[in-house]
Amino acid sequence: MIVIMSPAADRDDINYVIERVKSAGLSAHVIEGEAQTIVGVVGTPIPPTLQENLETLPGVAEVVRVSTKFKLSGRDFHPHNTLITINPLNAPAGTPPVVIGGDQVAIIAGPCSVESEEQIMASARGIRASGAVALRGGAYKPRTSPYEFRGLGERGLEFLAQAREETGLAIITEVMTPSDVELVARYTDIFQIGARNSQNYLLLEEVGKAGKPVMLKRGLSMLIEEWILAAEYVMAQGNPDVMLCERGIRTYETATRNTLDVSAVPVVKKLSHLPILIDPSHAAGKRAFVESLSLAAVAAGADGLMIEAHPDPDHALSDGAQSISLDEFATLMPRLAAVANAVGRTLPISNVIAS
Amino acid sequence: MIVIMSPAADRDDINYVIERVKSAGLSAHVIEGEAQTIVGVVGTPIPPTLQENLETLPGVAEVVRVSTKFKLSGRDFHPHNTLITINPLNAPAGTPPVVIGGDQVAIIAGPCSVESEEQIMASARGIRASGAVALRGGAYKPRTSPYEFRGLGERGLEFLAQAREETGLAIITEVMTPSDVELVARYTDIFQIGARNSQNYLLLEEVGKAGKPVMLKRGLSMLIEEWILAAEYVMAQGNPDVMLCERGIRTYETATRNTLDVSAVPVVKKLSHLPILIDPSHAAGKRAFVESLSLAAVAAGADGLMIEAHPDPDHALSDGAQSISLDEFATLMPRLAAVANAVGRTLPISNVIAS
Amino acid sequence: MIVIMSPAADRDDINYVIERVKSAGLSAHVIEGEAQTIVGVVGTPIPPTLQENLETLPGVAEVVRVSTKFKLSGRDFHPHNTLITINPLNAPAGTPPVVIGGDQVAIIAGPCSVESEEQIMASARGIRASGAVALRGGAYKPRTSPYEFRGLGERGLEFLAQAREETGLAIITEVMTPSDVELVARYTDIFQIGARNSQNYLLLEEVGKAGKPVMLKRGLSMLIEEWILAAEYVMAQGNPDVMLCERGIRTYETATRNTLDVSAVPVVKKLSHLPILIDPSHAAGKRAFVESLSLAAVAAGADGLMIEAHPDPDHALSDGAQSISLDEFATLMPRLAAVANAVGRTLPISNVIAS
Amino acid sequence: MIVIMSPAADRDDINYVIERVKSAGLSAHVIEGEAQTIVGVVGTPIPPTLQENLETLPGVAEVVRVSTKFKLSGRDFHPHNTLITINPLNAPAGTPPVVIGGDQVAIIAGPCSVESEEQIMASARGIRASGAVALRGGAYKPRTSPYEFRGLGERGLEFLAQAREETGLAIITEVMTPSDVELVARYTDIFQIGARNSQNYLLLEEVGKAGKPVMLKRGLSMLIEEWILAAEYVMAQGNPDVMLCERGIRTYETATRNTLDVSAVPVVKKLSHLPILIDPSHAAGKRAFVESLSLAAVAAGADGLMIEAHPDPDHALSDGAQSISLDEFATLMPRLAAVANAVGRTLPISNVIAS
Repeated sequence: MIVIMSPAADRDDINYVIERVKSAGLSAHVIEGEAQTIVGVVGTPIPPTLQENLETLPGVAEVVRVSTKFKLSGRDFHPHNTLITINPLNAPAGTPPVVIGGDQVAIIAGPCSVESEEQIMASARGIRASGAVALRGGAYKPRTSPYEFRGLGERGLEFLAQAREETGLAIITEVMTPSDVELVARYTDIFQIGARNSQNYLLLEEVGKAGKPVMLKRGLSMLIEEWILAAEYVMAQGNPDVMLCERGIRTYETATRNTLDVSAVPVVKKLSHLPILIDPSHAAGKRAFVESLSLAAVAAGADGLMIEAHPDPDHALSDGAQSISLDEFATLMPRLAAVANAVGRTLPISNVIAS
Repeated sequence: MIVIMSPAADRDDINYVIERVKSAGLSAHVIEGEAQTIVGVVGTPIPPTLQENLETLPGVAEVVRVSTKFKLSGRDFHPHNTLITINPLNAPAGTPPVVIGGDQVAIIAGPCSVESEEQIMASARGIRASGAVALRGGAYKPRTSPYEFRGLGERGLEFLAQAREETGLAIITEVMTPSDVELVARYTDIFQIGARNSQNYLLLEEVGKAGKPVMLKRGLSMLIEEWILAAEYVMAQGNPDVMLCERGIRTYETATRNTLDVSAVPVVKKLSHLPILIDPSHAAGKRAFVESLSLAAVAAGADGLMIEAHPDPDHALSDGAQSISLDEFATLMPRLAAVANAVGRTLPISNVIAS
Repeated sequence: MIVIMSPAADRDDINYVIERVKSAGLSAHVIEGEAQTIVGVVGTPIPPTLQENLETLPGVAEVVRVSTKFKLSGRDFHPHNTLITINPLNAPAGTPPVVIGGDQVAIIAGPCSVESEEQIMASARGIRASGAVALRGGAYKPRTSPYEFRGLGERGLEFLAQAREETGLAIITEVMTPSDVELVARYTDIFQIGARNSQNYLLLEEVGKAGKPVMLKRGLSMLIEEWILAAEYVMAQGNPDVMLCERGIRTYETATRNTLDVSAVPVVKKLSHLPILIDPSHAAGKRAFVESLSLAAVAAGADGLMIEAHPDPDHALSDGAQSISLDEFATLMPRLAAVANAVGRTLPISNVIAS
Repeated sequence: MIVIMSPAADRDDINYVIERVKSAGLSAHVIEGEAQTIVGVVGTPIPPTLQENLETLPGVAEVVRVSTKFKLSGRDFHPHNTLITINPLNAPAGTPPVVIGGDQVAIIAGPCSVESEEQIMASARGIRASGAVALRGGAYKPRTSPYEFRGLGERGLEFLAQAREETGLAIITEVMTPSDVELVARYTDIFQIGARNSQNYLLLEEVGKAGKPVMLKRGLSMLIEEWILAAEYVMAQGNPDVMLCERGIRTYETATRNTLDVSAVPVVKKLSHLPILIDPSHAAGKRAFVESLSLAAVAAGADGLMIEAHPDPDHALSDGAQSISLDEFATLMPRLAAVANAVGRTLPISNVIAS
């Protein structure tokens, strides 16, 4: 930690800072510049409140934190990429595991909400045929207004499980509150934590204890640093299998529902060893932009995509405007594969075509 | 609902929109402009997904929603201000109720976290002497990093209750998860829903059922419309006593921790009948700016303030940098009272000085 | 300047940083922490590109700038508030000067655009009677679309001058491009630099040379630091009379045209000695919110306000939606005076009533 | 234009709106909904101020504009992509024209600032060898602080011209003020309008008259709609050759210098027929992220890139932190070509290798 004194600070101010540092059991190194003095703080552990306490002392201009905050999620101490391997529950014999974070770009697709058995089975068959590795579908839906469709609940989970038994696709579905974790865990292969719950710390800890991979969406106005710290909450419970998912951030621009922060891909890869995926559908908010953002995400180096695809998007009960049809998904996949190849990654398209 | 067709839309596109509107049991009124056609949708109920479904049809440029979304919280159907009356639990006999939303500006103060019995009692006595009507203090703390202080839990609630028994101050404290609602309800007079939980809909419904006033902080990047809809979640459970609290939004500016959106005061008052308060401390993030923002909030017409004040802010376990001392709070209150009087409101300072 | 090395930096990395610092003629002080090393850079002058050059060296985690960037505008070296005194050109004998930055809160008002002689004379008389000290009015208007009304040009300036000769009000008007500075200087008492030109550095330098006070509006997404640096451009040409004007920043919220950053008042006062004003009209974008924001600005400590007021706002050629009528302005002024008094400032209302 | 009345509006309010519409020479069509009434406004021309004037009338909830604002730049009336063809001035005989907006992705590269003859010649040769089609370099530099390097001026332009004569690369350089347009026009092939000048309307009109292609960077917090309207300023002067360049917008995230809004590519392509390029360097702010963003931009469908590349970025006089070296540029180009091919576009790499 470094304390930068203001040019107007006097000797007493500096001494008081030094004293406060020492009273915390740390040592203080003073550098006197031409205009300003700097106090370097050395030692461990640094009390969590020291920074803000020092910031308010007289004559202090700024306090800069030096040491990394990412104990488990940071790349500093864990240089290799995390690989997450998922064996879908009750999948047909011979179903290969899904690996996220490796050479293959993992494509997850499916409807926003589970609406019916027919809808979810049609979705699963369609995306499977096009090369997706996992099926998304919400059984519990957070909605901005209390008067909107909020999901089928456990029946929705049952339909997802049924789709997995037939297709071998891994299942990912959102869990919204700690008391639902146990129930959802009986069905899902991957927990999804939605953007609105990205700092619901008790929920993060609960899925951390549940022993299944977690996809953590970025909150609407979350700093990348805060997002990785949220992953740290899950990991601190002993669960290393966290993947991050960028889904657009809130900015002043209104031409898209959110602004896809595609830079999050290289930034996360620099700071952390965790896989990073992109959800182009929530970012775009409009179906017409999903292809372009999907291609950009793969080119940027994303480890996977989560795309909203629906058998009949014009009649979807939620997010229809940003969902593509299964035919559009089938057309998109080979284009994604071409870009993946261009950047040295693969998509499991050829297997699918062969099957 | 109004469907605006693009200039390039042809007769088939328009007819298809009309057909879709009619198939939803609604009627369609067509206005042909020189360049573009508009289709007005009339009837009720409008299916929640109709807007986004129409938006994706060929030839549709835009769909504009007309009818208000605020059934319970909107001023349209409830023109008078909501008054929330709170009788602090187990307060000394003769303690007057706290009324929020009336002529008097309600000042809530106290430390970020409950740290100890001594700290909370000193806080309560200090702010009571200066004219505050309620004591804040967190027993359960959401923290960005899992390695920070997270509150005393139920012991913290007991200290708050003890402070209320002595001073008669109402108590407000945060509840973070649905399963804690019952416990926290045994102690608190007002539930605080924090910014990170402002779209935790299951929590909103649970406090909606608990039958006590709720203060709903604005999320870090929440539209005012979304915020009022979150209040609607609470109210839809039969609880009319919701107050909103603006605490700074996230913008590009970094000179303050957040950007206080003081305009939220007149905007909320126009859209809703619910009381609106301001938390200048989280907005500023730095103690030196709290006074200026507090004065601005009262002048803008806020129904109350929630200010972080601590007996020894330099040693606070959380938010010390933005907490003012009890002496600073005592100096601030008469200044707030002067501004309140200047805009035709009151503060209960004179009573206090008399007591 | 401080160079923070990453935990993974090795001895060679550190030595290379030291070498680069020394080759710039500066000295390097090394502090070795438990996890990371810090290199303090001491000496002057620090080359402007050193920071970004060091940031890219191997093993460097971050470079923090210490010394202030505000040579002329900063409070560090000029602790007293700047007072700007304006003697309106050709005003009636005995017209007192306008002082900005002192005890009195300066209220500037008038229409967005100068539309006609009648309109500007009616505005001037109306706002003068209510206690304003200066008249605003645009003769050159920047408009988002090329197909909108763009001002009367020099005829507009003549109308403003005529209003000043009758009322004694100081005149403020926008200058949009360097080649107009000489012409506008013949008429105006204060140059206004609009938000869109806040980083038009050649224009800033040109008004810096023109020897008249300058009001510098904050750009739509300008950091406060960048804004003060823009003032530095004017001051570096020998013109100390710069006042800053906050007029709302662009955020995700759409309920108001912009988001008034009322915190800019105490932040600017901490960093700089220059006066800070608020334009509530552009911030609000809607007339109904102007009063609330004006009161908040005065309570927060603003040195002045610039308010759009028009004799017939419903028929204004620009910004009618955010302009208040002259009657509304007359009603607002005593309320502003009451709040000004409550925070120890004054408004020249009583003089006016006497005159 | 559509006027949406509030539920509380009465018959008089509606009649007054109708009267105002008629007094503007337009006709009003009334649709009565169950809760609210809508008034459709039909006819032309709609006065520019009608919208905001109607918005303030009693009982009016909202006014929605229907007709497109993009007369020249909009895709509605000009469905085919604009192709911009540039024949570099005084280029060696046989130099092919540069075409922007066609199948080929145009790569522009070069240093932030022109620093010396050696630097610019080395840059030009390096990027030419790797397949770039145009050379960037600033001779006039806008800088946030008045104490930073501000460019070589006309000597810089001469060096750029010299590089063109040798390499045949087209030249693009920034013009900052209307009075410089004539001088810069004698040297440049493409005018660059920087982000800070994106709403400097007099400058836009001046380059509109100069008869050379213009690259218009997006302002730091410009809506895409405002950006296209800025292009409209140039086009309204008779210059159809405008290309847009997204260079990152300002958001709350600080891990990158700006946030690349990659969605701007499909959004602009939907709204306008003008070419859209991406500047990954200013978006990233850090060299390590430039490759990832460049690949993403090409995959998203950008018509070109403008990349900062420098012979010795660690010693650059400006933007060194975000500049890549010429070797890194040489490595990047084949990767860009692979992605371009994957999305059905080309890069002129093979020609280069052959030459």
